[in-house]
Amino acid sequence: MARRYVITFGCPDRIGIVATIASFLADAGGTIVEAAYHTDQDTGWFFTRQEVAAETLPFGPEEMRTRFAAAVEELNGEWQILDTEERRRVVVLVSKEGHCLYDFLGRVASGELDVDVPAVIGNHPDLAKITEAHGIPFHHVPFPADDKAAAFAQVEKLVGEADPHAIVLARFMQILPARLCADWTGRALNIHHSFLPSFVGAKPYHQAYRRGVKLIGATCHYVTAELDEGPIIEQDVIRVGHDDTIQDMVRKGRDIEKVVLARGLRWHLENRILVHGNKTVVF
Amino acid sequence: MARRYVITFGCPDRIGIVATIASFLADAGGTIVEAAYHTDQDTGWFFTRQEVAAETLPFGPEEMRTRFAAAVEELNGEWQILDTEERRRVVVLVSKEGHCLYDFLGRVASGELDVDVPAVIGNHPDLAKITEAHGIPFHHVPFPADDKAAAFAQVEKLVGEADPHAIVLARFMQILPARLCADWTGRALNIHHSFLPSFVGAKPYHQAYRRGVKLIGATCHYVTAELDEGPIIEQDVIRVGHDDTIQDMVRKGRDIEKVVLARGLRWHLENRILVHGNKTVVF
Amino acid sequence: MARRYVITFGCPDRIGIVATIASFLADAGGTIVEAAYHTDQDTGWFFTRQEVAAETLPFGPEEMRTRFAAAVEELNGEWQILDTEERRRVVVLVSKEGHCLYDFLGRVASGELDVDVPAVIGNHPDLAKITEAHGIPFHHVPFPADDKAAAFAQVEKLVGEADPHAIVLARFMQILPARLCADWTGRALNIHHSFLPSFVGAKPYHQAYRRGVKLIGATCHYVTAELDEGPIIEQDVIRVGHDDTIQDMVRKGRDIEKVVLARGLRWHLENRILVHGNKTVVF
Amino acid sequence: MARRYVITFGCPDRIGIVATIASFLADAGGTIVEAAYHTDQDTGWFFTRQEVAAETLPFGPEEMRTRFAAAVEELNGEWQILDTEERRRVVVLVSKEGHCLYDFLGRVASGELDVDVPAVIGNHPDLAKITEAHGIPFHHVPFPADDKAAAFAQVEKLVGEADPHAIVLARFMQILPARLCADWTGRALNIHHSFLPSFVGAKPYHQAYRRGVKLIGATCHYVTAELDEGPIIEQDVIRVGHDDTIQDMVRKGRDIEKVVLARGLRWHLENRILVHGNKTVVF
Repeated sequence: MARRYVITFGCPDRIGIVATIASFLADAGGTIVEAAYHTDQDTGWFFTRQEVAAETLPFGPEEMRTRFAAAVEELNGEWQILDTEERRRVVVLVSKEGHCLYDFLGRVASGELDVDVPAVIGNHPDLAKITEAHGIPFHHVPFPADDKAAAFAQVEKLVGEADPHAIVLARFMQILPARLCADWTGRALNIHHSFLPSFVGAKPYHQAYRRGVKLIGATCHYVTAELDEGPIIEQDVIRVGHDDTIQDMVRKGRDIEKVVLARGLRWHLENRILVHGNKTVVF
Repeated sequence: MARRYVITFGCPDRIGIVATIASFLADAGGTIVEAAYHTDQDTGWFFTRQEVAAETLPFGPEEMRTRFAAAVEELNGEWQILDTEERRRVVVLVSKEGHCLYDFLGRVASGELDVDVPAVIGNHPDLAKITEAHGIPFHHVPFPADDKAAAFAQVEKLVGEADPHAIVLARFMQILPARLCADWTGRALNIHHSFLPSFVGAKPYHQAYRRGVKLIGATCHYVTAELDEGPIIEQDVIRVGHDDTIQDMVRKGRDIEKVVLARGLRWHLENRILVHGNKTVVF
Repeated sequence: MARRYVITFGCPDRIGIVATIASFLADAGGTIVEAAYHTDQDTGWFFTRQEVAAETLPFGPEEMRTRFAAAVEELNGEWQILDTEERRRVVVLVSKEGHCLYDFLGRVASGELDVDVPAVIGNHPDLAKITEAHGIPFHHVPFPADDKAAAFAQVEKLVGEADPHAIVLARFMQILPARLCADWTGRALNIHHSFLPSFVGAKPYHQAYRRGVKLIGATCHYVTAELDEGPIIEQDVIRVGHDDTIQDMVRKGRDIEKVVLARGLRWHLENRILVHGNKTVVF
Repeated sequence: MARRYVITFGCPDRIGIVATIASFLADAGGTIVEAAYHTDQDTGWFFTRQEVAAETLPFGPEEMRTRFAAAVEELNGEWQILDTEERRRVVVLVSKEGHCLYDFLGRVASGELDVDVPAVIGNHPDLAKITEAHGIPFHHVPFPADDKAAAFAQVEKLVGEADPHAIVLARFMQILPARLCADWTGRALNIHHSFLPSFVGAKPYHQAYRRGVKLIGATCHYVTAELDEGPIIEQDVIRVGHDDTIQDMVRKGRDIEKVVLARGLRWHLENRILVHGNKTVVF
């Protein structure tokens, strides 16, 4: 795909924001390839995401950022400009269950997800072989019940070295300490195997089975210190019936987990998700 | 549709149940038009529902019931035989919001739902006119905050006179007293405007909006003394996004409420739902 | 809802369109409540739809149109400005099947669809009573096989007198003559009871049953002279199985027809649909 | 899972079929774990599928088959008894596009799909490496435009040696000759990347894009000599909009292709699909 600069911008709503940004781009000769706007009526916060064709601009990403900063200075906004030529890096944390990792690796191998994967980290060694078959380093970090702090320190170090744009908890069964949640704010994505806020916590399919629900789901959300309470990125569901055992639910649910995580991760890497409070705008 | 006898049957699972019932029907010359079976592995309970073409049997419904009782006596089962020529009666309880009632009346008027509606009861008079335009009696029973007991007594009396097969709470905003829940067990269907167990209680769309979910839903369930905790009959969802206001969610949700309630009611009237503990088997 | 002006605009893509429109609105003090943009990469056509809070502008709709025309003159665009205070008028054409009409009338009666309905026209009288119960005039125009031209002339006259923003073919079983299709271009919406382009023409549920598909659907589209070939506005599907008879498919399909038509009509009346060639942009 | 015998049975409908089979099983002491019945009203054909707990029967699969044959002799039925302890073999035919193969291999590797894969055959070598990383032999059979017959002969030989229960065309881009279709009847499954019967043949996503549909889909069907006309096993869809390019449709469609193929293949291997004429019963 042709190189693009992706502007994401948020500020208190007022008259003239769109005109300011659009005039800046028009004056520079930039072609807007995709644009989306939203104002949250409750908080009065304005959001926009715009993709600009890089070859239509007479300057590179650094000067783009400098000029954009000047142009929007008065708006007191928060913004980022992503250059699609910068490779995106993803680190994946796993445990024993492989379906989300297999799905992710398949998307990377087929070129659908064009990212670098500097590391996969598992608290069990089960998924080492498949990871390495894809030419990706696998790090086994055991999580002894009596010393999880040391294990998390090692995970933190490995993630820090990779400096990833996304840290994917692909059915990683350990609860992150609050400090890591804070350090990784806005970069750590979890896939929870229920339609949140239903069935928070452990064994959601078992909870769903006991309650007798007729649909089960999965939720991709940003990780926060409150378990399963972070901003929701994407959700989907699949129908189940009285003849579905817990094992059937687990199997059917996996297909939803995989696709919900894949969508959420793609949107995150394309800077399509703007977090505001505990909610997301997905452009 | 040609007349049918609908057998619903449940008993502790053992060898030979299917053979017993099938042999009884075969010996009588009965043609099975539709049949479904299920065994709950957790509780060891067997369920079946069978539709038999009435004209293939040499006896009527009463003798059918007498003979069937003898045939299955040793199985210690619970059963019913529904004669599709018996008209089904439905009473609807409403408040001010009309969408579920409109939808129900449209289905009755178009012949899709072939039932008698002896009464619609509202704690507000708003929906009297449309009900009466369909030739159906509307009863306004005010619910003063300081004397709900008397109001419920009047509702109970009206329902009792109608002796309905289904009592539909079509966005009826009053919580039934425990005694009525008990009296109406297995006949009272509620439509709750969320994907239970998410967002129990009041204003579920507001709760959904605040949590930032990406799908909203509706749940049709049998009424029990525990609010929104009864056996779930049917659920469905619809996608929402950051640009949907609470009013948008209310509007989109209504389409799900209508169709979920319509499916649940149809299945109930066709004896397709077998309740076991707090779960349903839907054949 | 507070009064809004809804701008819909299309023109050949070039640099500065967004800036031109946004600057015009900012200079006038207008608050943009909702905005969407799209460029069709194949045809190089730019589309936008913007809702502006009327009370933030110092002029009324007529002056708004005059000023907007001047502001965008150089862009050679096609545009409309809808004033949400102008009542929208909808005429419905029906035959014998009432489910889409019942659904529509329910939405109007409950206030969900805030429109005037100057006429319902049927080639059979079956739906007169329910229409009139809602206080809406019903016109029975018989369609004798040997003189459909005269019947269509009468329909044309009735529609012309109502001068509606939308002409809804709610399971109207007559094929419009080409001249009417042309006269009503962009205003006539049909609901076809299949997932187009599958099962064009008559008896789509029968076609679907014979082919053994596992999902059936419905399509809302603008009417053109080519039967079932007009620009698609909305589609949806529902699952069917081997145990669904044609009658079951008809019944299940109705729920999809109703909701697909309701969505399409709402979007049309809110000027959310921009037609380009044989495709639609739905903002 | 505990060993089971899976009976699939079809015959002209008559009174007493269920009783005959159920009595045979009850007399032998067999516990029915799952049972489904259907009668096609158009053709008067009866279908059933029953799973029996093997450990409740006093004989093995061969004697089971002999005794069953005797028990149902008079019914003139077609039947099979599958022993779940017999390993199932799947051969996959691929071209260059890997998403369906990746998905399949992930399901095999994670144990979700417990089958043997004696061979993957590709008309291009692109997917050799990933296949072999899973320990599965990959056969590259080039398809020169001027000698496809020889290539198909080699494919036939490889498939014949593997003697598989399922031959999966996982985006295999060659049209099978009629003779192979005949030889592989009921064993060859294709995944077509459209919601059939829409968009038969080549480049269905391009066709869908041009028509402006609002949902795209995928279809898993048995291969017959008529291209894309075989009995449909499973279908599903995903929503698309005006802002989706053909490339977006291809990407979104892949997720549907994968899951539709996975469901269809699982049902096929569990003998859940009974073909009758050009339609399927899926139990």
